[in-house]
Amino acid sequence: MYTLIIGNKNYSSWSLRPWIALRVAGIPFTEQKLGFFTEEFTRRVGAVSPAGLVPVLLDGEFAVWDTLAICEYLAERHPEARLWPQDAKARARARSLAAQMHSGFGAMRQALPMNVEAHLPGIDFPPAAQQDISRLQAIWHDTRAEFGQGGPFLFGEFTIADAFFAPVVSRFTTYGIAAAGPVRDYMDAVLALPAMQEWTRDALAEATFVVEDEPYRKQR
Amino acid sequence: MYTLIIGNKNYSSWSLRPWIALRVAGIPFTEQKLGFFTEEFTRRVGAVSPAGLVPVLLDGEFAVWDTLAICEYLAERHPEARLWPQDAKARARARSLAAQMHSGFGAMRQALPMNVEAHLPGIDFPPAAQQDISRLQAIWHDTRAEFGQGGPFLFGEFTIADAFFAPVVSRFTTYGIAAAGPVRDYMDAVLALPAMQEWTRDALAEATFVVEDEPYRKQR
Repeated sequence: MYTLIIGNKNYSSWSLRPWIALRVAGIPFTEQKLGFFTEEFTRRVGAVSPAGLVPVLLDGEFAVWDTLAICEYLAERHPEARLWPQDAKARARARSLAAQMHSGFGAMRQALPMNVEAHLPGIDFPPAAQQDISRLQAIWHDTRAEFGQGGPFLFGEFTIADAFFAPVVSRFTTYGIAAAGPVRDYMDAVLALPAMQEWTRDALAEATFVVEDEPYRKQR
Repeated sequence: MYTLIIGNKNYSSWSLRPWIALRVAGIPFTEQKLGFFTEEFTRRVGAVSPAGLVPVLLDGEFAVWDTLAICEYLAERHPEARLWPQDAKARARARSLAAQMHSGFGAMRQALPMNVEAHLPGIDFPPAAQQDISRLQAIWHDTRAEFGQGGPFLFGEFTIADAFFAPVVSRFTTYGIAAAGPVRDYMDAVLALPAMQEWTRDALAEATFVVEDEPYRKQR
């Protein structure tokens, strides 16, 4: 039986990735949510992962950490869930995109922290963040055009690549980033996922205001 | 036939990862080296990858980018090379470590840029970088103890996890980071790899001084 240790749903973009992959794949798991910057978080996460970060997947006693390693672990153990595309080249491209998201787009991540509950349109982002936004939209557009037959997601059916971009879709919604055509359609498909709506409801039910993740507001 | 597009061997830590994995696995490939911050780099890399970064693996015309996606692609296409550990839990742990290296240790990466040719001991690194150094050494120590039977590398035989830490071993050598016992033995095993020695020879033969990667020197 799996336990997924996550952070605040309003803020924890990294937690959302394996969480939504598990939910969309219909893989049962127990969720353990720990508040950012709490003593319980430090103690519990530190006991299972040297990285000291969420998410962590526990398979019984065995800990798998880091979003990408968790997703690879699930894809390997649940081939019937088709968490990666079946075609070898599509799968390679999906891994390129997930890995690029995993280590890149730092300017966007810093300027547009995930904040599910907030609505903050009209912020003037730095040029590097704006460039990241444009590059992400171009990636979604081009991937849909090349690999998106057979469904509304980047590779048709939902894959780990979509799980990695789900927090970005949430950010772009919070900050009111303009989107049209295939990019808008892709964002709408992600937002319409029952799993995404469940995460959003849970995030809205949280009351914690984490100052470190709120560069633009003084309170919720 | 594979082509691996890489950057300066003296500086490009990301390029070293798939390069050494290919070499150790004995997978034939053509190397295409492009100098950082050159017009040729921008044009050639931009034409094959939206990330605009090295390394890029070309399998015929098909581009795979990002170190982790390249390594997963190679592991999948060359199962006989055993690029991941064969045991499922060891494989999961190796992926956790590679992914943690992929997105983490930012303070260490900034303060100790890879610089194969340089010898720069005695620098007083910021506390965050020193903490990263200690965590990396602890990871090597603990992984060797838990999974390192059957060979001198983290999981016994050489795997992608070692490919991801090879640039760190090079950094620790350049900056004279103290190491003893199993950590020293692990570093020596990586440095003794013929592939690592080949990379080092090539780096020493380069003459380019890249200012952006040289926080501590004025010239080679």
